[in-house]
Amino acid sequence: MTVRFTKGHGTENDFVVVPDLDGRLDLTAQQVALLADRHAGIGGDGVIRVVPTRLADEPDVLEQAGAAEWFMDYRNADGSLAQMCGNGTRVLAAWLRREGLIGDGETAIATRAGVRRVRFEGEEVVTHMGAWRLVHGDEVAERGADSLVHVEEAEEIDEPYSALSLDLGNPHTVVALPPEVSLDGLDLTRAPVVRPAPREGSNVEFVRVLGPGHLAMRVYERGVGETRSCGTGVCAAALAMGIWSGAADESTQWRVDVPGGSLRVRALPGREVELAGPAVLVADGETSLL
Amino acid sequence: MTVRFTKGHGTENDFVVVPDLDGRLDLTAQQVALLADRHAGIGGDGVIRVVPTRLADEPDVLEQAGAAEWFMDYRNADGSLAQMCGNGTRVLAAWLRREGLIGDGETAIATRAGVRRVRFEGEEVVTHMGAWRLVHGDEVAERGADSLVHVEEAEEIDEPYSALSLDLGNPHTVVALPPEVSLDGLDLTRAPVVRPAPREGSNVEFVRVLGPGHLAMRVYERGVGETRSCGTGVCAAALAMGIWSGAADESTQWRVDVPGGSLRVRALPGREVELAGPAVLVADGETSLL
Repeated sequence: MTVRFTKGHGTENDFVVVPDLDGRLDLTAQQVALLADRHAGIGGDGVIRVVPTRLADEPDVLEQAGAAEWFMDYRNADGSLAQMCGNGTRVLAAWLRREGLIGDGETAIATRAGVRRVRFEGEEVVTHMGAWRLVHGDEVAERGADSLVHVEEAEEIDEPYSALSLDLGNPHTVVALPPEVSLDGLDLTRAPVVRPAPREGSNVEFVRVLGPGHLAMRVYERGVGETRSCGTGVCAAALAMGIWSGAADESTQWRVDVPGGSLRVRALPGREVELAGPAVLVADGETSLL
Repeated sequence: MTVRFTKGHGTENDFVVVPDLDGRLDLTAQQVALLADRHAGIGGDGVIRVVPTRLADEPDVLEQAGAAEWFMDYRNADGSLAQMCGNGTRVLAAWLRREGLIGDGETAIATRAGVRRVRFEGEEVVTHMGAWRLVHGDEVAERGADSLVHVEEAEEIDEPYSALSLDLGNPHTVVALPPEVSLDGLDLTRAPVVRPAPREGSNVEFVRVLGPGHLAMRVYERGVGETRSCGTGVCAAALAMGIWSGAADESTQWRVDVPGGSLRVRALPGREVELAGPAVLVADGETSLL
C-alpha cells in the first residue's frame, strides 16, 4: 500500500501528516509506529491522520464536533491513540490551508479532547487550547507551590525545587529555577522526580525568566523524555509564571523559548489559553512502507 | 529551492538520498545538516548526493574512478564530508537500480575512499568493502589482543576487556564479551574508554557468539554514540572473531545481528572483505527546505 504524507513541525515538535480524505485508511498501531520510526520509517513525534469528521468512524468525536469539518486523528510515536497535541493542531492547520481545504479565517478542528479553534496570524498559527485548571485548587496555588521536583544537575545542587501543578487536558508540573541554577546545565536524561507523585505521572517544565513576559523553558515529557517543544507545556509554564507574578490578568501574553524555537502564549478570559507559533511543512512524499 | 529525495536504510542505518543527475546541486554543510535533522528536517544518519562522477567536481575521485559512472557524495549528519559508508553504498545501489540507472550486474561506485563494487543477491545488496589491516600488525594480533576497553555495565563488573584493533578505512576496536556479561546490559550511553588511546579515536564493537559463524554485536561509533548498525564495524567484528577462532580462512562467512537487523560478512583473499544485507527504500518526496 502506498500512502501520501507530509512531514512538518512546530518548533521541532514533528509529525507525519497522512491525508485520508475519503476515510478509507485504517492505520494499525504497528503501521503508525513504523511511519514514526526515525530510522526504519519516516520519523516523527507523532502521526496525524487527516480525515473528514463525518468519515472518521469516531462516534464520540462526531457528536461533539459541531461544524468541525476535519478530524485530527493523533497517534503517539508508539502507535497508541492520543487525545490532542497543541503543536500538532498548528501543523495540521498549516497543511489544510496549503491544500486549499480550509480558508484563511478561523477554523474548528475536531480532536478526541473536543473541538479546537485555529487561526492564522502572519507566519504563525494560533490554537485556542481550551481550559486549564490548577490541579490542587486555588487555595494551594496561593501558597505558590504544591509539590517538589528533584532533578540531577550538573552543579550537583541536591535540594528539590518547589513547583506548581496545572492541568491542560494533560498534567504539568512547573518549576521556576532559582537564579543560581543554569537551565542548560540541568540533566534531563532521567525523569525528574515529583513529590507527592501525581497519580498518572506528569510532564515537568523548568522555566527561567529572560525578561518581562519572556521565558526560557525545557521540558521532560512523561513516557518520552526531554523533547524540543511541548505545546501544552509551554502554556502551563506561562500560566504558572502568571500566577507567581500575581500581575497577570486575562489578556497577559508571554513569549516562551524552547530548544526547538519560540512560541507565544496568551491568557484568555474564563481560564482558557491560546498558543501561537510557526508551523513548517518540510517535505511531501509517498511511502510504500505499509 | 525544491529538491527530490528518497529516504532509505540498511539495517536501520538511514540516509537521505538526494539525486543530482546533472551535477548542479552544491549542498552547503548547513543544508546537509538541515536535511539530516530528525526534527526540523527529513532525518538520517547521513546524506548521500548521487551525481555522475564526471560532473562531481572532485578531481581526486575522478582520477581514481575508472569506469565508476556514479559518485557517492556522502556527508555526515553534521554536514561534514565523509570518505565512505558501507551501508550507504548498499542503499545507493538499491536506489540506482530502482531508478534504472544501473543494471542487475556488478556496478562500480566511486567514493572518496576509492571505488567500491556492489552487486545484488536476491533481496540483498553486497558491497566489496576493500582491504582491511590489523592496526598493530600480525605479531601483536597473534597474542589475541592489543588494547583494553573499559565500559560501565549494568552488572558493575569493573574489569576492562581485552580487544583487537582493525582498520577498515576507519578504526575499530573489537571486544569479545566474556560469557557472564550480557550484551544487552552494556551501558553504551557513554563512550567506552580504549587504552592505549587510539590517536584519532576508535569505533568500539562488542561481540557475542550466538552459534557457528553467527554473532551478535552492538557498536559505539566515535563522535556519534551507539547506532543501530555500522557496516565497517560489522566487518571488523567478524574479522576479529575469525582471527580469534584461528580457523577462519579466506572464504569464511559470518552472520552478524545488530540492533537494526542482520548483515552477512565474507572474508576475501588478500585481506579484503564483503558486506551483504537488506537495503530498503522507504519514501520518496520533495522538500523545499533548502
